[in-house]
Amino acid sequence: MDKKIFDYNVDDTFDLFLLIKNADVRVAKNGKKFIAFTFQDTSGQIDGKYWDASDPDIEAFTAGNVVKVSGKREIYQGNPQVKLFKIRLTNTGEPSTPEHFIESAPERKEDIAEEINQVIFEITNANMNRVVRHLMSKYQKEFFQFPAAKKHHHAYMGGLSFHTISMLRLAKFIANQYPEINKPLLYSGVILHDLGKVMELSGALSTEYTLEGNLVGHIVIVDEEIIKACAALKIDDKSEDIILLKHMILAHHGQLDYGSPVRPRVREAEILHQIDNIDASINMMNSALQRTEPGTFTERIFGMDNRTFYNPNVPKVTNEEQMELLD
Amino acid sequence: MDKKIFDYNVDDTFDLFLLIKNADVRVAKNGKKFIAFTFQDTSGQIDGKYWDASDPDIEAFTAGNVVKVSGKREIYQGNPQVKLFKIRLTNTGEPSTPEHFIESAPERKEDIAEEINQVIFEITNANMNRVVRHLMSKYQKEFFQFPAAKKHHHAYMGGLSFHTISMLRLAKFIANQYPEINKPLLYSGVILHDLGKVMELSGALSTEYTLEGNLVGHIVIVDEEIIKACAALKIDDKSEDIILLKHMILAHHGQLDYGSPVRPRVREAEILHQIDNIDASINMMNSALQRTEPGTFTERIFGMDNRTFYNPNVPKVTNEEQMELLD
Amino acid sequence: MDKKIFDYNVDDTFDLFLLIKNADVRVAKNGKKFIAFTFQDTSGQIDGKYWDASDPDIEAFTAGNVVKVSGKREIYQGNPQVKLFKIRLTNTGEPSTPEHFIESAPERKEDIAEEINQVIFEITNANMNRVVRHLMSKYQKEFFQFPAAKKHHHAYMGGLSFHTISMLRLAKFIANQYPEINKPLLYSGVILHDLGKVMELSGALSTEYTLEGNLVGHIVIVDEEIIKACAALKIDDKSEDIILLKHMILAHHGQLDYGSPVRPRVREAEILHQIDNIDASINMMNSALQRTEPGTFTERIFGMDNRTFYNPNVPKVTNEEQMELLD
Amino acid sequence: MDKKIFDYNVDDTFDLFLLIKNADVRVAKNGKKFIAFTFQDTSGQIDGKYWDASDPDIEAFTAGNVVKVSGKREIYQGNPQVKLFKIRLTNTGEPSTPEHFIESAPERKEDIAEEINQVIFEITNANMNRVVRHLMSKYQKEFFQFPAAKKHHHAYMGGLSFHTISMLRLAKFIANQYPEINKPLLYSGVILHDLGKVMELSGALSTEYTLEGNLVGHIVIVDEEIIKACAALKIDDKSEDIILLKHMILAHHGQLDYGSPVRPRVREAEILHQIDNIDASINMMNSALQRTEPGTFTERIFGMDNRTFYNPNVPKVTNEEQMELLD
Amino acid sequence: MDKKIFDYNVDDTFDLFLLIKNADVRVAKNGKKFIAFTFQDTSGQIDGKYWDASDPDIEAFTAGNVVKVSGKREIYQGNPQVKLFKIRLTNTGEPSTPEHFIESAPERKEDIAEEINQVIFEITNANMNRVVRHLMSKYQKEFFQFPAAKKHHHAYMGGLSFHTISMLRLAKFIANQYPEINKPLLYSGVILHDLGKVMELSGALSTEYTLEGNLVGHIVIVDEEIIKACAALKIDDKSEDIILLKHMILAHHGQLDYGSPVRPRVREAEILHQIDNIDASINMMNSALQRTEPGTFTERIFGMDNRTFYNPNVPKVTNEEQMELLD
Amino acid sequence: MDKKIFDYNVDDTFDLFLLIKNADVRVAKNGKKFIAFTFQDTSGQIDGKYWDASDPDIEAFTAGNVVKVSGKREIYQGNPQVKLFKIRLTNTGEPSTPEHFIESAPERKEDIAEEINQVIFEITNANMNRVVRHLMSKYQKEFFQFPAAKKHHHAYMGGLSFHTISMLRLAKFIANQYPEINKPLLYSGVILHDLGKVMELSGALSTEYTLEGNLVGHIVIVDEEIIKACAALKIDDKSEDIILLKHMILAHHGQLDYGSPVRPRVREAEILHQIDNIDASINMMNSALQRTEPGTFTERIFGMDNRTFYNPNVPKVTNEEQMELLD
Repeated sequence: MDKKIFDYNVDDTFDLFLLIKNADVRVAKNGKKFIAFTFQDTSGQIDGKYWDASDPDIEAFTAGNVVKVSGKREIYQGNPQVKLFKIRLTNTGEPSTPEHFIESAPERKEDIAEEINQVIFEITNANMNRVVRHLMSKYQKEFFQFPAAKKHHHAYMGGLSFHTISMLRLAKFIANQYPEINKPLLYSGVILHDLGKVMELSGALSTEYTLEGNLVGHIVIVDEEIIKACAALKIDDKSEDIILLKHMILAHHGQLDYGSPVRPRVREAEILHQIDNIDASINMMNSALQRTEPGTFTERIFGMDNRTFYNPNVPKVTNEEQMELLD
Repeated sequence: MDKKIFDYNVDDTFDLFLLIKNADVRVAKNGKKFIAFTFQDTSGQIDGKYWDASDPDIEAFTAGNVVKVSGKREIYQGNPQVKLFKIRLTNTGEPSTPEHFIESAPERKEDIAEEINQVIFEITNANMNRVVRHLMSKYQKEFFQFPAAKKHHHAYMGGLSFHTISMLRLAKFIANQYPEINKPLLYSGVILHDLGKVMELSGALSTEYTLEGNLVGHIVIVDEEIIKACAALKIDDKSEDIILLKHMILAHHGQLDYGSPVRPRVREAEILHQIDNIDASINMMNSALQRTEPGTFTERIFGMDNRTFYNPNVPKVTNEEQMELLD
Repeated sequence: MDKKIFDYNVDDTFDLFLLIKNADVRVAKNGKKFIAFTFQDTSGQIDGKYWDASDPDIEAFTAGNVVKVSGKREIYQGNPQVKLFKIRLTNTGEPSTPEHFIESAPERKEDIAEEINQVIFEITNANMNRVVRHLMSKYQKEFFQFPAAKKHHHAYMGGLSFHTISMLRLAKFIANQYPEINKPLLYSGVILHDLGKVMELSGALSTEYTLEGNLVGHIVIVDEEIIKACAALKIDDKSEDIILLKHMILAHHGQLDYGSPVRPRVREAEILHQIDNIDASINMMNSALQRTEPGTFTERIFGMDNRTFYNPNVPKVTNEEQMELLD
Repeated sequence: MDKKIFDYNVDDTFDLFLLIKNADVRVAKNGKKFIAFTFQDTSGQIDGKYWDASDPDIEAFTAGNVVKVSGKREIYQGNPQVKLFKIRLTNTGEPSTPEHFIESAPERKEDIAEEINQVIFEITNANMNRVVRHLMSKYQKEFFQFPAAKKHHHAYMGGLSFHTISMLRLAKFIANQYPEINKPLLYSGVILHDLGKVMELSGALSTEYTLEGNLVGHIVIVDEEIIKACAALKIDDKSEDIILLKHMILAHHGQLDYGSPVRPRVREAEILHQIDNIDASINMMNSALQRTEPGTFTERIFGMDNRTFYNPNVPKVTNEEQMELLD
Repeated sequence: MDKKIFDYNVDDTFDLFLLIKNADVRVAKNGKKFIAFTFQDTSGQIDGKYWDASDPDIEAFTAGNVVKVSGKREIYQGNPQVKLFKIRLTNTGEPSTPEHFIESAPERKEDIAEEINQVIFEITNANMNRVVRHLMSKYQKEFFQFPAAKKHHHAYMGGLSFHTISMLRLAKFIANQYPEINKPLLYSGVILHDLGKVMELSGALSTEYTLEGNLVGHIVIVDEEIIKACAALKIDDKSEDIILLKHMILAHHGQLDYGSPVRPRVREAEILHQIDNIDASINMMNSALQRTEPGTFTERIFGMDNRTFYNPNVPKVTNEEQMELLD
Repeated sequence: MDKKIFDYNVDDTFDLFLLIKNADVRVAKNGKKFIAFTFQDTSGQIDGKYWDASDPDIEAFTAGNVVKVSGKREIYQGNPQVKLFKIRLTNTGEPSTPEHFIESAPERKEDIAEEINQVIFEITNANMNRVVRHLMSKYQKEFFQFPAAKKHHHAYMGGLSFHTISMLRLAKFIANQYPEINKPLLYSGVILHDLGKVMELSGALSTEYTLEGNLVGHIVIVDEEIIKACAALKIDDKSEDIILLKHMILAHHGQLDYGSPVRPRVREAEILHQIDNIDASINMMNSALQRTEPGTFTERIFGMDNRTFYNPNVPKVTNEEQMELLD
């Protein structure tokens, strides 16, 4: 049972436990109902249709359940797909914990937490340091559980914290390369910038936007949290350093058009925006490219202006003999 | 001394007390300094240049001072202008209170306050009602003093409250014409929508953007104030009615491009945005048209996409005789 | 037979007379033809598919016919739908007048006509008054029959006149609140602004764009009608008041991008544009929201930049007890 | 007296009759008035400043007068300029007809008229033919006098007719190259497309926009003229050929953004738009390039998206010897 | 066997040799595979679905094969379609050369070649003349085989050369009408402007973008070819005439947004861009209109901003009697 | 003589050698000529006006000359300015080498060269390695002399190489953080991306665009250089690795609108674009901020969408005592 769905080749048959991520009931052209499933395990997600679904089927096979699936791995219009032979709910004693089937961050939560803590020591502005620590402690659990987005990038359990630590590593390198940069401000901004996702989104499973996410949005939510933190910590929220910190968050989407109520007007806010861009776009391109054969293009990537990206044939490294010929 | 600057005709000479609104020191092409003044009294604002200014002149004639001016009213490239003969500071006993020289709202503060109070009775949602009353009481003084904008529209002492009451009157009519509208939500939104101006701007005299105005902006400032009001009033700021109220404020610029972090996604938020537009644009057009001769176009109005507007020659009303001929 | 289609709940079966609004013949994946119907009665519109349609079926069941339908009310991907059991043409003696099955304006034509006439008395500019009366008389019948649009807003029988009277009510209130406004000009503009729809569109049933609608458009059509009215009434069409009146119509879409050949350059033209916006958008939001459960979002509204709108759970009115606690 | 202003080299002094095109009175930094002149003769336009202008000077030297000017031809920031030594009004017997000083079309009015008449014979659609002849006859005088624009392109006496005949020549060639093209429709559209300029603009001298030009615009003005022509000629203005003809005019700016109320939806309307573009842009580029030294760039051309264009050094033609070497 | 597919009327049955242009294998809602064919012969292209395709079918009926098809010509949602009765591969002796089934340019390759050669004589700049001749000779074969685009315009065998000669004819007329134009530069630019298509695209059959087409693009490819030609011909590629020639190619899409790395900054480059526009858009409109009934609109044309175009009922030519009545 | 112009405070008088960067001759309102100078030394640039300039003055004091200036350092409308007392050309023996007065990169050319060489060892793709070395060797001298731009960013002697090495450092860190990245491709792209500047611009002194810069642009120039390098090195320029390398250069502006003929379609091309952005924008912000007082905003930065940036008052580092209180 250790083999995962994407360990099978196309046209292989398999017999696997999978988590139902989505289960949309639709009506086929012949008038009968079917279920359009998205299954997942830690190796990725795959669609499959279950035809002529009965009402008990529809009640049983809902999102969030683990099921035993017999089927065949196929490709349909360029996308992986399951041809279903049999599907049933799990029995007692069989694996049934949804979390075990979900992709998660490639690093351990404890390591990320420790690394963030080390950076917090470098936030040598008292107000910023205290606000960051207060909010990281308040939302500690969610911060390590939530994805960084509903889809698009780092859309997996723990994605928020992994996106944050990746950005922090870039931020540290950049802050050292350009010594004029205000490190406490930049690091505080990186750590808090997307924390509002833990209220904008519903969670790591079947992720949806909350009402607050739709009507207020994660950017303003963090701003509100800073106000509350200042109240709790008796910090003057009209002090310049708190205004700067709030500006970091408010401006991090870079453009009004992308939902920031103000554009970056402080150097570190502009840099935060650019670091966010780099980490998110590399994550999106890597995800798409690893599903793409060499010599072909990826599917369109929505978060990259719907571009498709080429996966080169060219070997990255010329062998030594060839290199020696260079001289 | 009752005659105001705009009571004089072009080419009249005058001898008046005026408030210095701006006093920019510049260097003329001949290398000597001059002061580019903007003077004002309650009839309006007018520019004038003071040539060959000495250093004591520059120190004496600064913004915020009332001065005695002898000069001639002129027109320069379509704009009113003062040709200065003499200027001096006021002596003891002469008028010197800046506020007496500033244009202000055309209705009495007490009447506006009373009318707003009557509308608050119609805010029959407990949470909204309490938040609105709390914030109106907290910023009562500033609300009746501040302009609604630095320039563009209602840019005078008390402009914020007059803009608000004008919008409330439109809101009440519209809410009655379309009974599906949620009155408590719409009225609360109207009253609070621009309250953040009292922190975004520096005041009614020599109005400038504050640091918070530049880096956070009046939209998010009101959102923060609602959070603080909920804390003070022990209201759950995650309740749906508070989320809706915050959305009203956050969305009131209508477009992300105009600085709203979210677009209107609730009917009343869209209506609030449109009412704001109507009152602001009528105010801008009226201001420009009243300075424009019939049969000609206004100067370009920045807030109206730089359009110029035509002031018709045509009499609004045909006399009775003519009308009788119609039948 | 008094129960309408939307009086039935989902999963109810029914036996009803319905008007065929659209009947598109398509080919199913199995190669056989089917008819994609849109039915309607005065409670609204609903789709339904008729599988394996024979050629006589296709000839019989065309748009504009009333039919007797047995079926079941369902929901398909969030939209109401009919599952058809049986369909037949009506027999003699059964209801068969299409107009009786069409949604229409919520006020009586006579009342609207009377109210418009009252406003015309306030058009105290002889040229404008005569042109308005001439055109309202020339297109009286169509004005009260046509919808205001093919879809989007006021897309029902009489929608044009109801949209016009709603705008007139807003115009009167606004003209009184801002006394600088030229009432004759504003009211004339409101009454005539969309009259060209009676030539742009084909009628109230199976509404389509006419050739003139596609190649000339309702905005220029009204301009032409004013030219013809001036000729009939021996009014100089180069007089300033006629130029102003034409400008009101030409500029009423506000932006060149939306099909106005000139942007508003007269105060009343800008106001006409904004009033049109308000009435149309409230109409679109109301239509969508009344089909939406509290606590959920509407479908995307094309005319509102494809936004979805939230229908709040929050009761509009707090009960009296709660309100008393406020003090 | 045959030498024109642009026949003089930079730094030459001259003694010439010139027409005052514009005469703006301004106040210098020293408080004294000066007149900013634009002079012209048939070789072009040139600016010059007249310092310390007395009130009688200001009254005498107004736009539309011919004056005797002594001065020096200079270059100021890349633009030609006159340094004024002396200026006086003309005496009896000296040249004083403004029209003699204005640049005009490079072909004779009679020849253009004859060529247009020949094309009208090819308009073998009776309705279009009659409307075109009616309007060409109605506005014959203005058509040969007016410029095609206030500035930008063909902005000289007779420019409208010259722009029209240039476009007609292109239209004829294109209609022959692509035989599917409807010649009567294309030729009618070309002849009438800009005729509204004779009402949009004030005339060939001191050209300004009229009120009708500003509030209605030349595109809709032609549409109105077609309606009036149909009335005079008893042609049904709802016939398809008249709708097509009107569409040609209405759509000829190509984009809504450029003031067309409808985009081209008929092949010939799209072609008319493109022919208009070609002739106008070649005219603008030629005007700018002929004032530009080889090896340098023109000033920015507003009508070409503010681009500057390079005037090559390279001789157009390689001499024969060189060409022989090619083989 | 001389009758082509579009010589049959709708609902006719036929028995024809056709080329398979595309053959996409898909899975039907019932889980079985089908082939979505596009067939073509010289009269045009038509779709058809082949249900319940077996694996041998799928292997046999691939793009590039000629097949014998029995079927019925139908219309499906406004587009022509084949209902397949029978399909088989061709036998020995039956027509099987794909090129014989492909639409091609309406003029003979030899005539086009001769006409281009005549124009090359007018390229009286030695460097340009030699580069043009070198590249036309280098890519002679492909130039007369390739289409001008994958779809959109001149998307058929030989389309590239036919597009080029059509543009050359326009260029010659325009260069004569406006004598300031540099003929050698304009003609060289026209001949070379799209030559890069022979590397951007894969060929005339089953046309796809090559990797170089996707990552470099035909505009830069021509620039590179000019560099290589200069090297081969020992021409200085930094000479002004070569820079001008390269600019012609680089700027010919007119806008950065359309993939030109520089906007036209030379008169002839702007004209080249406009000529390209005219020929491409007339070609697209003609193609769509010839498939459209009089009195109806075409399908949306992607390359014309998705507009639909009206095919008029109005006869192009009024008969003589009617015309005589005009006088 | 070691003190530089920006070592003086405002209102100090000085006596210094300065390089004339620009010397524009203009005509003052009084009709007399003056020279608008920009002076520079290694501490920065400063403007100054020289009134009533004689013709010999104008001939003597031209751009590129070193002069001895006596004057006073002032501030005019927020910008530094020199009030000139005296100016003369240098005498024999006085400093007169323009290069000694020009700001240059903050690192030594030899160190940068060595660091780039180390990175080239990591370009383990033979084709890329050879092309990079060939071009770096071909343009070695210019690469270390040219600025990276005319103004905007790294606009000083050696700016091109310093911009390149800064980007390489970012590239190395990022390539290590995200191991999927193709290092040879990324590093090659970084090193070559702006090399075309050495032909697009005229040099380090009085930098202007060359004709080739205007009509071809630095992006395509590098593409051409790669083609030439392949010819020289006998590398197949149609091999995939060369196509990828050219794509890196062509796409590095990220958007068509910014002059790239193709958008990034390869992961490393997108990353190159983002690294370029980061380094350029930090350079622009740093330059502007170091001229800006704490607590105020910079002037508008053209390359940052005309935003102004705030220079905070807040000390970057809280002192130790305060930090200890945090725990």
